[in-house]
Amino acid sequence: MRLFLFRPLCYNSPMITLIENATIIPMTERNLSLRGSILIKDGIIDTVGEHAAVKADEIIDASDMIALPSFIDAHTHLAMVLMRNYKDTSENLQDWLSEIFPIEDKLDDRDIYEASRLGAAELIQSGCTVFADMYFNAWNTVKAVKEAGMRAVIGQTFMNDAADAEFRIRELAPRILEEIGSDDMIRLDAAVHAIYTSTPDCYQRAAEWVQERGVRLHTHLSETRKEVDDCLSAYGKTPVELLNDLGVFQVPVYAAHGVHINGNEMDILRDNNVSIVHNPSSNMKLASGIAPVKLYREKGINLALGTDGASSNNNLSMVKEMNIAALLQTVACMTPAAARPYDILEMATAGGARALGLDDRIGTIEAGKEADIVLISTKDVNMTPMNDPFSAVIFSSDRKNIDTVFCRGKKLLEHGELKTIDKTEAIRKTKERWEDILRR
Amino acid sequence: MRLFLFRPLCYNSPMITLIENATIIPMTERNLSLRGSILIKDGIIDTVGEHAAVKADEIIDASDMIALPSFIDAHTHLAMVLMRNYKDTSENLQDWLSEIFPIEDKLDDRDIYEASRLGAAELIQSGCTVFADMYFNAWNTVKAVKEAGMRAVIGQTFMNDAADAEFRIRELAPRILEEIGSDDMIRLDAAVHAIYTSTPDCYQRAAEWVQERGVRLHTHLSETRKEVDDCLSAYGKTPVELLNDLGVFQVPVYAAHGVHINGNEMDILRDNNVSIVHNPSSNMKLASGIAPVKLYREKGINLALGTDGASSNNNLSMVKEMNIAALLQTVACMTPAAARPYDILEMATAGGARALGLDDRIGTIEAGKEADIVLISTKDVNMTPMNDPFSAVIFSSDRKNIDTVFCRGKKLLEHGELKTIDKTEAIRKTKERWEDILRR
Repeated sequence: MRLFLFRPLCYNSPMITLIENATIIPMTERNLSLRGSILIKDGIIDTVGEHAAVKADEIIDASDMIALPSFIDAHTHLAMVLMRNYKDTSENLQDWLSEIFPIEDKLDDRDIYEASRLGAAELIQSGCTVFADMYFNAWNTVKAVKEAGMRAVIGQTFMNDAADAEFRIRELAPRILEEIGSDDMIRLDAAVHAIYTSTPDCYQRAAEWVQERGVRLHTHLSETRKEVDDCLSAYGKTPVELLNDLGVFQVPVYAAHGVHINGNEMDILRDNNVSIVHNPSSNMKLASGIAPVKLYREKGINLALGTDGASSNNNLSMVKEMNIAALLQTVACMTPAAARPYDILEMATAGGARALGLDDRIGTIEAGKEADIVLISTKDVNMTPMNDPFSAVIFSSDRKNIDTVFCRGKKLLEHGELKTIDKTEAIRKTKERWEDILRR
Repeated sequence: MRLFLFRPLCYNSPMITLIENATIIPMTERNLSLRGSILIKDGIIDTVGEHAAVKADEIIDASDMIALPSFIDAHTHLAMVLMRNYKDTSENLQDWLSEIFPIEDKLDDRDIYEASRLGAAELIQSGCTVFADMYFNAWNTVKAVKEAGMRAVIGQTFMNDAADAEFRIRELAPRILEEIGSDDMIRLDAAVHAIYTSTPDCYQRAAEWVQERGVRLHTHLSETRKEVDDCLSAYGKTPVELLNDLGVFQVPVYAAHGVHINGNEMDILRDNNVSIVHNPSSNMKLASGIAPVKLYREKGINLALGTDGASSNNNLSMVKEMNIAALLQTVACMTPAAARPYDILEMATAGGARALGLDDRIGTIEAGKEADIVLISTKDVNMTPMNDPFSAVIFSSDRKNIDTVFCRGKKLLEHGELKTIDKTEAIRKTKERWEDILRR
């Protein structure tokens, strides 16, 4: 016998979720944590800390949980989960791209849809509800994101020249925009690949399009020494100087990597409010180098964090990325002051929201913001004793501790189980597509 | 209604476990992986790859698993899980130790027992069945290890001078040996803290004791620049030169860290068969530096991997440690050739077994070895598609993928659940002890 529980359909009463007794890290004030509740009404955070008596639809006892703004993966290529661990032993970025590009030429819409769904699942499992993507045929990724109930800033990719940019604006972007429809959880930005694949007039055309539409421009920037050297040879300028002189920084830009950047270039980035998205695992794995994160922060440049694609990482775990970011910067600068746990959390939450222009909606836990929240369980051996919750999240936790993930108040993950994506099916379908791709 | 299944008690027939259809990485030959079975009889690996028809007590379908020798944590301070995330924001190793030592003065037997049990659980969860420990009142750790059914190389700690060493040999070591009893899964080595806490004659007395007993000597070595500089000031020699001149390397030594070592010292280490235990997370977190792992390998020095204590990591995940070791060495040397996935796995398995002198029993999956095996599930989004199993383990996997762990054929973990340790109780008890310690 089963019991059916009916919730009365009161169209005028909001859906209310109460998270009680949590250790809350709201990311509104340096090193602030508090014990208390988070009240969510119709996907919006109503109160934080204490709450008035309320009849909640759901009460979650978060006594053994740390509540944080959910993580923001500010630079990835979601569908590249397909090429995970595939020929990933190349010497450097350029050699690796020469292995990857021929595979990408074979991908069809279905491949990208299935891979995006798998990638979305992986991000959600690591406490992430938002990502900035750069990949082609992105209408498929939009479809996967909508089904997953998460957010995304999708990139209309640009490379080659202005004529090609024109084609993409006319023929491809409308397909993505149509798939997005009226969904205000998804935005279409321009994602210009890099100065070594895109001409100056391509960047300028993309920036124009960004300006017209009031969105943002996403790009790879100074990822490798070779990129900078080649740019100096070709243009007599560094990539940052080139983009600045082209006027690209007149629109809001978030730039991934920023590994090889000098002090003068940092001034340009700061003066133009360019955000840098740090991708430590990928930079380490591809032997690109170590981004000067400490210097960026000292300069007052806004920092975000990204996993990069799963094929150069080789996972999409924001919680692992935070751990690596903290450790790497500490040893690179030979001081833990280079990257305190709060600094890393800032990059993965509020900093990411600022980079993507979403900071009026998400990135902190405070009244009025949309409820994108991750609950990290401290009920496992690796989180005992917890002591400092900031250190616990950055240095002790992993994907196994990610318990519950809310996106605008809706659960995407509960006790580690995906709620909006059929995991078994996503795995099976992605494997099928990949085996098929290898046969093509 | 329940069905009771009886297994006939045949005293003469061995307990047989058959792991079928696994992707086996035996670690017997570079980059070798094979599909097949592992047959275990009474805790010993009988056949690998194919097997004769057999009536097994248990058959495990490992179609979606990678089978590896279980990981060996060759340097830790297990009970330091107590101080996890406690005042871990110090500037460097020396400052941090000054926070930790006053706490350690308060610890009693019960604290160390409970913390060791929690630490053992954490190691098992990450696929580890063996660890080399350096901590005081180690009879408590022995008790926890025996209950957990895992292996350990316990260290009788030494510091201060020869008179103190004499006291420890006379008064403390017998207590540990008594607790070990006839258990051949646990061995007692000497663990001399470091040249900055232990006098030359302390090292010499410990080495004598090691020689008499036919065991090994575990020590910290050249962890920080300051340690090396202070040693040069005090003795006119580097730590490696000092220990060599003292005759310490006449006994088998495994030395943790080895961060600040020059080429001449590497020759000494190689000529004396000293193993280096790499602890990348701890070296990064404490801003100690980056160990020259690539150079060690080129010199032919045996390498192992360790987590170090949870209070300077701040976890005991061997799978995370492998990931970080690979990424760190790649970026430090600016080439992925510096640390291929196989090299890292070697450190965490066969290399660790050699360092601890256990390579005749464990560290590879081959007939005749004891069955210390970890099964890593590939049935999660972060392991799809798997492609290269070596890259998948090193770069994609995490603790959530650790499915089953065997120690001499006995399951310590099954589908991610601890089999020999009550996790809830271990967490509760450790929390209680820690809260009590803070009140003392």
